[in-house]
Amino acid sequence: MTDENHSQPSENRIHGSVTVQDAETLAASIPADATLATSGFGSVGYPKAVPLALAESDRDLSLTIVSGGSVGEEIDTRLVEAGAIERRYPYQVTPEARAAINEGQIAFHDSHISRLSDEIELGQHVDVDIAVVEAVAIGDDWFVPSLSIGPTPAYVAAADRLIVEINDSLPRELEAIHDVYRPGRPPNREPIPLTHPGERIGTSRIQFPSEKLVGVTRTERRDTSYTFREPTAADRAIAANLLEFLADEIHDNPVFAESVQLQFGVGSLGNALMGALGDFDFGDREVNYYGEVIQDGLLDLLDDGLLDVASATSLALSQDGQDRLCEDIDRYAENVVLRPSDISNNPAVVNRFGVVGVNSALEVDLYGHVNSTHLGGTHLMNGIGGSGDFNRNALIPIVALSSTAKEGAISRIVPMVPHVDHTEQDISVVITEQGVADLRGLSPRERAEEMVEHCAHPEYRSDLRRYLKRAERGGGHIPHDLSRAFDWQSEG
Amino acid sequence: MTDENHSQPSENRIHGSVTVQDAETLAASIPADATLATSGFGSVGYPKAVPLALAESDRDLSLTIVSGGSVGEEIDTRLVEAGAIERRYPYQVTPEARAAINEGQIAFHDSHISRLSDEIELGQHVDVDIAVVEAVAIGDDWFVPSLSIGPTPAYVAAADRLIVEINDSLPRELEAIHDVYRPGRPPNREPIPLTHPGERIGTSRIQFPSEKLVGVTRTERRDTSYTFREPTAADRAIAANLLEFLADEIHDNPVFAESVQLQFGVGSLGNALMGALGDFDFGDREVNYYGEVIQDGLLDLLDDGLLDVASATSLALSQDGQDRLCEDIDRYAENVVLRPSDISNNPAVVNRFGVVGVNSALEVDLYGHVNSTHLGGTHLMNGIGGSGDFNRNALIPIVALSSTAKEGAISRIVPMVPHVDHTEQDISVVITEQGVADLRGLSPRERAEEMVEHCAHPEYRSDLRRYLKRAERGGGHIPHDLSRAFDWQSEG
Repeated sequence: MTDENHSQPSENRIHGSVTVQDAETLAASIPADATLATSGFGSVGYPKAVPLALAESDRDLSLTIVSGGSVGEEIDTRLVEAGAIERRYPYQVTPEARAAINEGQIAFHDSHISRLSDEIELGQHVDVDIAVVEAVAIGDDWFVPSLSIGPTPAYVAAADRLIVEINDSLPRELEAIHDVYRPGRPPNREPIPLTHPGERIGTSRIQFPSEKLVGVTRTERRDTSYTFREPTAADRAIAANLLEFLADEIHDNPVFAESVQLQFGVGSLGNALMGALGDFDFGDREVNYYGEVIQDGLLDLLDDGLLDVASATSLALSQDGQDRLCEDIDRYAENVVLRPSDISNNPAVVNRFGVVGVNSALEVDLYGHVNSTHLGGTHLMNGIGGSGDFNRNALIPIVALSSTAKEGAISRIVPMVPHVDHTEQDISVVITEQGVADLRGLSPRERAEEMVEHCAHPEYRSDLRRYLKRAERGGGHIPHDLSRAFDWQSEG
Repeated sequence: MTDENHSQPSENRIHGSVTVQDAETLAASIPADATLATSGFGSVGYPKAVPLALAESDRDLSLTIVSGGSVGEEIDTRLVEAGAIERRYPYQVTPEARAAINEGQIAFHDSHISRLSDEIELGQHVDVDIAVVEAVAIGDDWFVPSLSIGPTPAYVAAADRLIVEINDSLPRELEAIHDVYRPGRPPNREPIPLTHPGERIGTSRIQFPSEKLVGVTRTERRDTSYTFREPTAADRAIAANLLEFLADEIHDNPVFAESVQLQFGVGSLGNALMGALGDFDFGDREVNYYGEVIQDGLLDLLDDGLLDVASATSLALSQDGQDRLCEDIDRYAENVVLRPSDISNNPAVVNRFGVVGVNSALEVDLYGHVNSTHLGGTHLMNGIGGSGDFNRNALIPIVALSSTAKEGAISRIVPMVPHVDHTEQDISVVITEQGVADLRGLSPRERAEEMVEHCAHPEYRSDLRRYLKRAERGGGHIPHDLSRAFDWQSEG
């Protein structure tokens, strides 16, 4: 994991009276039942050496781990395998963590990313003992985060103590990308003054009271970052349908006369959709990304000059993407901004910019309710993440997914989703490789017709129509046959 | 409905070159298939004479009616009975409208109130032909709304034409209460500058381009306003549990050191809870209401000096409450502010003030998912209204409801809600007359235990535990037995 370093360890990373210790010593100072709040979002920027030292110790640990978003194997594989995690917030992406959560061994609770900073800082879920964060530089009362910011500023404020890992594999120059703005606390919080996706309203550093700092260690270990699959035929068909919808929308709506603000959810489909925008003609409009994560697809758009600004809370890039960014950081810093996740996902800011948000899902029902998180309604995949922030607050929230799963054996358009993450009011448009269901302003019965006709796979349309016909017997605004609503789930 | 007038018709209501016509003439000018956007929220401040004239005409109408929130019998009874409404947004409270929607005769679509103004103004659902609004005064390019503001400013902006009803039964002095602030349009919308619930950032008037005004009429007809039932024993027990929870929370959390911002949902329970606050000791804290509607219970608190400020979008008062307010309007105007609903329910502002939100529901499931709108998952009650705005964005979102319905024959704590309006992430606390389930930071299994132990009625606890035990066989993060999840619904 340390095959390539973008910059060598140098004393310009460590300032003031900060001294470096080894990770084992710091890990040993952590109480066995501590609540740790870690940096890390989009599987980058999380601490590695201290979690690994904890996992490799022979202590009997029952930790509570609060991450920003997804983190890598050092936490969500190694600590899980060591049986060291008792409680976990708010998002994970590893098979090991997922299994332990679904088996009830780890108590898990997820949160809307926009709300997470407040929830932790204002003591709504747990009291944080120690913040453990990755940085590229540190002083007596500040550090520079690495490839993600997430809710780290709030976690540091909430924690009694602070442990910092300096990652020498990453350039200190990442600070040029960061814009750390801290809203005050309610009830005297000021309006967030951000008026353009590319504007900077903060600083490159996260501040902390110097007395919180209990230790600093160094590592060259790199992130277990995302890998993306090549776009499938379905991905490309979804992208084509999305671009066709966007072309009409942008042409017709005066909101988009001068600029378009876009957001794409994390994952291979999101990455593929970002990439496909390269073929789209935005005319002379300014095009900005105001989202949660920057994936590799966005770097292409930036390189080609198709994107004016990209703002997010995580550089959730593949290792190749990280190398590409880090090798040319000054150029990217001109139009890439990394913000805390309570700003990147902020309801007011997403609304203010009239974002067009595109997020994926596991399944969508005939009436536009969306399951993003629980297979069969019971088994957690990752967590809700920021999908609710963008679905609820975007001007045009779009759900994009393939119409089937398991090579056509399962329809992702179902009579009733067995777990609802996003409600009918939160979704405007559903896009599959089959077409576009524009649900805006439609009654439930009309939405169902749109979903069957334009989003469901042809093989499932007659079954869905049959369900609707049965459901009509019971009447109501949203007709359902509760005795059969989940029949399709047993096939899953 | 016109037994008592607070002020007589006087020329100081009609300014500039505005001339008055009769309602029938104006109604006749409305195309049979027009889309009308009306004022009205919380069953007050809606137009009456023109809708009534439409209902009493013998024309074959197929109108689309977009109201702000709930309106009265002139629209949602009389026009429904006349078969004149083809499509309806976004909220209603009459048996006639409800039946027509549930029978599929009226195509209905609801919206989060905070999003509604944008959705209509930015053409996301329908194109508005004519705005029909109630006012207490008008000039060539402005009017003063009556007892509610709602999304009327956005509706007027969206409409091609404008019809205004001057209601002579209400004092023109209501303008002292209004604070109409208009955010700009995305993507150049500025941050909303409101920093205190009582601050005024706008004007008392809604502006319009003078060429939109096609007619003005006058009426003395009063609102079909809310009536509240007397608090029941369950209401009082819920209130006692709420106050006990609040006492701990306010004492412990530094956010509430100097002030507390509260919101209560519309309805008899909300009104009863507002009233019960009179018995609560807030110490020397400033206590403000930052909500959607002001109900009678709040007037008592204001009169007793227990509330510093009440801010909302509707004076959803009983007729007695209206009389009380209108007779002493200058005094109430000192600490009552009426705002557009995209400000009263604004996610950023609700978050900024750290609101404690208390909203009711039809039923809540073991894992904290909430059904606020659909009986049996199929039959619409009213609409989602602002419940999602406050549940999602309040610092502490609380759901309050009685543990049973139909005199104990139905449990409102169910295995799985058949319709989800608010997800597990949106709800912090559930309160019934049985007790308080504090769900914050808990895993689904832990939440279920809290719900059974503290919220369910004792008679249903063993059945709920039996469901959980069966559900465990399938495992998962949120255990469910999909074949039995809705068995309790058939009892409804």
